[in-house]
Amino acid sequence: MFKKRHPTVGSRPGTLVISSDALPPVINLMRYSSQGPAIERRIEHATELNEPFPEQTVTWIDIQGFGDHDVMKLIGERFGLHPLMLEDVINVPHRPKAEVYNDQLLLIINMILTSEETIVEIEQVSIVLGKNYVITFQDRPGDVLDPIRNRIRLETAPIRQHQADFLAYAIADTIVDAYYPALELLGDKLEDLEEEVVASPTTKLLHELNRLKNRLVNFRRAVWPQREAINSLIRDHHLLVSEPVRIHFRDVYDHCVQTSEVVEMYRDMVTGMLNTYLTSIANRTNDVMKVLTIVATIFIPLTFIAGIYGMNFQHMPELSTRWGYPIVWVVMLLIAGGMLYFFRKQGWLGGDGDED
Amino acid sequence: MFKKRHPTVGSRPGTLVISSDALPPVINLMRYSSQGPAIERRIEHATELNEPFPEQTVTWIDIQGFGDHDVMKLIGERFGLHPLMLEDVINVPHRPKAEVYNDQLLLIINMILTSEETIVEIEQVSIVLGKNYVITFQDRPGDVLDPIRNRIRLETAPIRQHQADFLAYAIADTIVDAYYPALELLGDKLEDLEEEVVASPTTKLLHELNRLKNRLVNFRRAVWPQREAINSLIRDHHLLVSEPVRIHFRDVYDHCVQTSEVVEMYRDMVTGMLNTYLTSIANRTNDVMKVLTIVATIFIPLTFIAGIYGMNFQHMPELSTRWGYPIVWVVMLLIAGGMLYFFRKQGWLGGDGDED
Amino acid sequence: MFKKRHPTVGSRPGTLVISSDALPPVINLMRYSSQGPAIERRIEHATELNEPFPEQTVTWIDIQGFGDHDVMKLIGERFGLHPLMLEDVINVPHRPKAEVYNDQLLLIINMILTSEETIVEIEQVSIVLGKNYVITFQDRPGDVLDPIRNRIRLETAPIRQHQADFLAYAIADTIVDAYYPALELLGDKLEDLEEEVVASPTTKLLHELNRLKNRLVNFRRAVWPQREAINSLIRDHHLLVSEPVRIHFRDVYDHCVQTSEVVEMYRDMVTGMLNTYLTSIANRTNDVMKVLTIVATIFIPLTFIAGIYGMNFQHMPELSTRWGYPIVWVVMLLIAGGMLYFFRKQGWLGGDGDED
Amino acid sequence: MFKKRHPTVGSRPGTLVISSDALPPVINLMRYSSQGPAIERRIEHATELNEPFPEQTVTWIDIQGFGDHDVMKLIGERFGLHPLMLEDVINVPHRPKAEVYNDQLLLIINMILTSEETIVEIEQVSIVLGKNYVITFQDRPGDVLDPIRNRIRLETAPIRQHQADFLAYAIADTIVDAYYPALELLGDKLEDLEEEVVASPTTKLLHELNRLKNRLVNFRRAVWPQREAINSLIRDHHLLVSEPVRIHFRDVYDHCVQTSEVVEMYRDMVTGMLNTYLTSIANRTNDVMKVLTIVATIFIPLTFIAGIYGMNFQHMPELSTRWGYPIVWVVMLLIAGGMLYFFRKQGWLGGDGDED
Amino acid sequence: MFKKRHPTVGSRPGTLVISSDALPPVINLMRYSSQGPAIERRIEHATELNEPFPEQTVTWIDIQGFGDHDVMKLIGERFGLHPLMLEDVINVPHRPKAEVYNDQLLLIINMILTSEETIVEIEQVSIVLGKNYVITFQDRPGDVLDPIRNRIRLETAPIRQHQADFLAYAIADTIVDAYYPALELLGDKLEDLEEEVVASPTTKLLHELNRLKNRLVNFRRAVWPQREAINSLIRDHHLLVSEPVRIHFRDVYDHCVQTSEVVEMYRDMVTGMLNTYLTSIANRTNDVMKVLTIVATIFIPLTFIAGIYGMNFQHMPELSTRWGYPIVWVVMLLIAGGMLYFFRKQGWLGGDGDED
Repeated sequence: MFKKRHPTVGSRPGTLVISSDALPPVINLMRYSSQGPAIERRIEHATELNEPFPEQTVTWIDIQGFGDHDVMKLIGERFGLHPLMLEDVINVPHRPKAEVYNDQLLLIINMILTSEETIVEIEQVSIVLGKNYVITFQDRPGDVLDPIRNRIRLETAPIRQHQADFLAYAIADTIVDAYYPALELLGDKLEDLEEEVVASPTTKLLHELNRLKNRLVNFRRAVWPQREAINSLIRDHHLLVSEPVRIHFRDVYDHCVQTSEVVEMYRDMVTGMLNTYLTSIANRTNDVMKVLTIVATIFIPLTFIAGIYGMNFQHMPELSTRWGYPIVWVVMLLIAGGMLYFFRKQGWLGGDGDED
Repeated sequence: MFKKRHPTVGSRPGTLVISSDALPPVINLMRYSSQGPAIERRIEHATELNEPFPEQTVTWIDIQGFGDHDVMKLIGERFGLHPLMLEDVINVPHRPKAEVYNDQLLLIINMILTSEETIVEIEQVSIVLGKNYVITFQDRPGDVLDPIRNRIRLETAPIRQHQADFLAYAIADTIVDAYYPALELLGDKLEDLEEEVVASPTTKLLHELNRLKNRLVNFRRAVWPQREAINSLIRDHHLLVSEPVRIHFRDVYDHCVQTSEVVEMYRDMVTGMLNTYLTSIANRTNDVMKVLTIVATIFIPLTFIAGIYGMNFQHMPELSTRWGYPIVWVVMLLIAGGMLYFFRKQGWLGGDGDED
Repeated sequence: MFKKRHPTVGSRPGTLVISSDALPPVINLMRYSSQGPAIERRIEHATELNEPFPEQTVTWIDIQGFGDHDVMKLIGERFGLHPLMLEDVINVPHRPKAEVYNDQLLLIINMILTSEETIVEIEQVSIVLGKNYVITFQDRPGDVLDPIRNRIRLETAPIRQHQADFLAYAIADTIVDAYYPALELLGDKLEDLEEEVVASPTTKLLHELNRLKNRLVNFRRAVWPQREAINSLIRDHHLLVSEPVRIHFRDVYDHCVQTSEVVEMYRDMVTGMLNTYLTSIANRTNDVMKVLTIVATIFIPLTFIAGIYGMNFQHMPELSTRWGYPIVWVVMLLIAGGMLYFFRKQGWLGGDGDED
Repeated sequence: MFKKRHPTVGSRPGTLVISSDALPPVINLMRYSSQGPAIERRIEHATELNEPFPEQTVTWIDIQGFGDHDVMKLIGERFGLHPLMLEDVINVPHRPKAEVYNDQLLLIINMILTSEETIVEIEQVSIVLGKNYVITFQDRPGDVLDPIRNRIRLETAPIRQHQADFLAYAIADTIVDAYYPALELLGDKLEDLEEEVVASPTTKLLHELNRLKNRLVNFRRAVWPQREAINSLIRDHHLLVSEPVRIHFRDVYDHCVQTSEVVEMYRDMVTGMLNTYLTSIANRTNDVMKVLTIVATIFIPLTFIAGIYGMNFQHMPELSTRWGYPIVWVVMLLIAGGMLYFFRKQGWLGGDGDED
Repeated sequence: MFKKRHPTVGSRPGTLVISSDALPPVINLMRYSSQGPAIERRIEHATELNEPFPEQTVTWIDIQGFGDHDVMKLIGERFGLHPLMLEDVINVPHRPKAEVYNDQLLLIINMILTSEETIVEIEQVSIVLGKNYVITFQDRPGDVLDPIRNRIRLETAPIRQHQADFLAYAIADTIVDAYYPALELLGDKLEDLEEEVVASPTTKLLHELNRLKNRLVNFRRAVWPQREAINSLIRDHHLLVSEPVRIHFRDVYDHCVQTSEVVEMYRDMVTGMLNTYLTSIANRTNDVMKVLTIVATIFIPLTFIAGIYGMNFQHMPELSTRWGYPIVWVVMLLIAGGMLYFFRKQGWLGGDGDED
């Protein structure tokens, strides 16, 4: 179900909601320029950020956990973040969007984590791009960005030659690329269920199909609005995003569209499988009915005949005839044979074998 | 069902419809400026509003209940409201919209009240924004705006630094923020039903699913057109809404879009659950059929055999043989065993245990 | 079903189709200016219209019934109506539209008549707006426009202060306002059926649901394209429609959109009810099956046991034992008890009571 | 099924596909001006067309059948048709479209033939409009254009006063007008089936519903894209189409939109009827089940009781009591009565009568 | 299921993914001008491409298989391909698109191979258009482009008169033309299944319908986004594509739209057939039920009567009457006749014959 961290109704705009079980913020700083080793530092007190950032460097401040109201406020003031921007960042989840506030660009996108082999968790990542710094906000620790950190640590990596806008792109690109492994997990699951749905439509399978469908609905809700957000980045000419980086963002856009389309296709397939499930059940009920009908319609008339001659009337001439018993057997076999012929004509007999 | 208060067909445009059970209007006035205490007054006679409003203050006139035609007309004349505007405000419900009439802006939005823990009521709030005043119209008393009143009473509150346009924003924002608790109530309900729909698809559950669906349809109808209304506020540059307030309205727009999307997702889920319900019923019918078929197809042939030897023919050689009775038992057990083997092969026997 | 009066295929464009059962035209003229009594006259011969219309007056020519080809042609010539315009007006139904031909504006909209308490009839009204006159065309007599006629008769009515464009607006507005009572009738019907659909899904109800659905489909087809037509009136700046009247047309547009949305919502609800109907039937079949299965699976094995001891074998030791008969009863009761226990565990027994 | 005449994959663009069973082309020429009799001639050799066409006349070349590659090529060269244009015309079906190639306009639309009372055939008509000529291409002989030919033959017909663009319009208009009789046939069919679908849902009816649905799908595919094609004719200002003729094309556009909407409505109705069909079947199964259940649950327990007293135990005290037999009858009647009371309470008994 | 070759999450943008089972690249070069024989050469080492390409010629480099990272890199450097462009080309599948990178145009489209009579395989073809060369990239060997190669070999072929942009068009055109045979295969399959779905709805058929549906979904996903890609080629005025070639691309666009529409129609038809399948099953279950009900409701009461007179009560006066036995027979026949009359009235008896 959808849960948004929202302030009490009617609060002042820009009110930050820090839930009681929020994790304390862990702040890391990385600073690099085109040469020399990258600086990495754990920020213990938000005041450490007050020193001005050197001109020719790019600084990445990575904040994980929003559990301290004062720290959040200090950061907001240090970087001059608009109160509404800070609200969007903290009160997760917000809709994916790209928006400009004065000299900063806010890009909110969703990260999909596939820890373990089956679970798909969705977490909002907010990227604030300033002149020579990037700030990323995440609600909980754990992300897919380690490869970028490693590339930055490498002095020769091409990323070191670019400005802050390229770092923002690299983060967005990495998050979107991580959709593909998640998609593959879902696709494999889908393939497994597809086999089963006609073969053995159990109640458990129905549960699993519904669970998969809900997961796809969530996936879609996370990815779909991002297309629009990233497209606005490409279309509108923000000063903060240089032309070559804009071309790179086109690539992120393509990947968003492609994953959206695949998720959409998967949803259609699950819907189709749920219909197939219902049809399979109807098919099986039909098979069960046929067995019952064949057995019952053959034996009920025969039992009736047997019942007739089990009556105790004193005057029943058949009972004393010599060939009465064998004749009754012959009559019964003829009736049974007639029934079987009728069922074969209806195509009910070969059914079980051929159809399964 | 949809009920609109509409005038007799063919009435003069701008005709106000005051139903006989309409509540008498309760009018409250709040006036504040950047400093000094806020003035709060209950307006007993609409004529009290005729005095001019001081330049440097913001006045909020809050009207609840439309039960007095003359009062409504007086107010319309006092503020120079366009007759069609007044008609839209009084003859509820009107579609959410933002529209400019000369030097006034009309914003119609829907308020969702979640009094009690389950009930979702929708009520139209019309906000008329003038140069230094805001008028809000509600059909019935009771709203979600008390927090704003409290903020205004506080001399140091930031809202005191802003003009009337910010007050209009604050009212719209508060109303839209109140959608989240309503959404959560619906989400919780949905979660409860989701469990039950496979486990015990009773008729009562079907009723509840349909009720929930109708509530979502109403919610959607209330929220969906607001996106467009608020977007037009952001897009068109009305003189009455200053640039910084426009940025704040972007936030309201985002929340409208997000709630719309969540409602849409919930509707999809309820539709899915109704399908699952049907499938569960089919599943259960199949289970019931299997039990009937297993029992009937085993015992009907056996009963037939017993019937055979219950016949009273004089010449039935089997009856007098020494081992006739035990042999019949053996034959019966063989038939029953064969049937059971067939059912196990069909996967009907393990079914009840595994599948539930 | 859809029936359009269309000329033989390949006829000259502008061919008028006068069906043999068309009613003879009844033509009424109303003329008014801002003062003095309104003139009302029945036009017997179309030639009476040839006199020029006074400059400062507004003339409304109301034509009901198209049964006379010559009259129609005379009117077309008198007012210089484009042949295609006349074709659209006469060969009903045409799609709702607003279109300009030289110095005339044609607005085609649909009137919904709710004569009696249940029937919804749709009839095309074509409004031709000229410089100082309005011509309305209707296929059959009977309309919802009497209130306008009454307002015109009243010398002090505001409508007397306006030009012909306001009259055209007033007619369109009145026709659209008449949708609300029709909507309410349909809504009430819907509410009635909603109760019944789970309680007693009879075949008659299925018929009624389908009939209601078709009526909603027709309603929608009548109303939906009008949004576009009226919107084009507001958007495009026709010289014939003055600015203040354009603002009034915005109101008509809003009502069209609102009724469209409500009809759309009703259609969704009927579709949902048809699905609920199917589900209810499945539910009932399941209930019936349970009863059959419970009774049959309890008694069929017992009957088999009774059959066993009804056999006439000479050597059946059980028959002669002292306690044989009571023991058989005990076995039978144990079997019946076991079955009942199984059914209770499956939740089939409490079902009927709880679920209904 | 969709069959397109397409060249071998990878052929040179503009390759014409002449299938072996294509009919030899029949070429007719009509030439007229505002006065004098119209010239009509059968063209035996395509070279006859090489003479220049008089300035003040309109020439209509009507080609039916594409069975001669050389003739097609000669015509293409004579009129300077673009190779791709010729390909679109010959390799039927092509999507309806309006496209300009240099000084020619190509309009491809679909003709619907309702030969006999039931069959709807779709055939592509390509109209090439040049400065003072119109060429129409049809795959097979037989069309709905005879009324136009008759009008041209008439010296006083208004069509004689217009240029080639009006002839192109007249052809398109006539083809589109012929949709209405086809629609009426389909509507009548629909009305017939609607009655039957609840009354007697036979397998044959299911076949017919599916056939009707496929026909509607084909109809829609033929008509839908034409809206766009004709709209582009109206919107774009081609030099070849004069302003007054453009107004006439608006009328063709309206008819295309109207027929599209009606087809769409019919499709919705057929889909609804297929659902009603399924529901009716479920209803009937439910009725059948009720009968079975009522009979079986009443008689199975009674048969069991009879079976009890058919047992041959030596010690069955009931058998020898004086009132045993009548008491058993009373017990049986009580059981049957109880069952009937239960069924009446469930509403299963009155069912057959009330519900059908 | 969807499988994309994607780099490890967080890799540097432009990372090429060469899977271990990728085939080694096979590179062919074709060079032609308006006269003289065409040059064809197998490129063994990518360095052979370093020589400059003559001005007045068109060079087609055809690369099949991406199994060698160094070769790919060398080619990328030789032609100055943007790293992201190379990534899109190698990491298949990418969404169909047309995009400009500096002085090159990248067109990604999907080729559909119908090797054998049933299998539809989808393979991405990337076309890079430079000033005087075209490079095509395919993941695996085998394509539909041989006819183009043959046309190039022919000195007199019109294609020799055109520039590189026409070659790119010819390749795209050929690939899109190859959709038609694939469509026909699917259409034939559909036609076969349509017959069977009412006649014999077996489980195997359900499998086949689902398989066909998935194939159509894949087809659609391949073709649909191409419309947009090719449309952008027509709409945007790239310097690389001359005006006459742009007209040719309009033709490719038309074919893309037409195939999309047919696939869409086929999907609707398969969905309809799946519904018909479910309805047919329900129909058959109803038929089976009727047989069971008729037989059971006739014989169960009769068996009960027989059971009555099989009881062993000492005092059963009927047993000793002279006409008891015949009277019982008469009663039984009356009951059976009454039942049959009831069934005939319900329309259950003629059913099997009439309905199938």
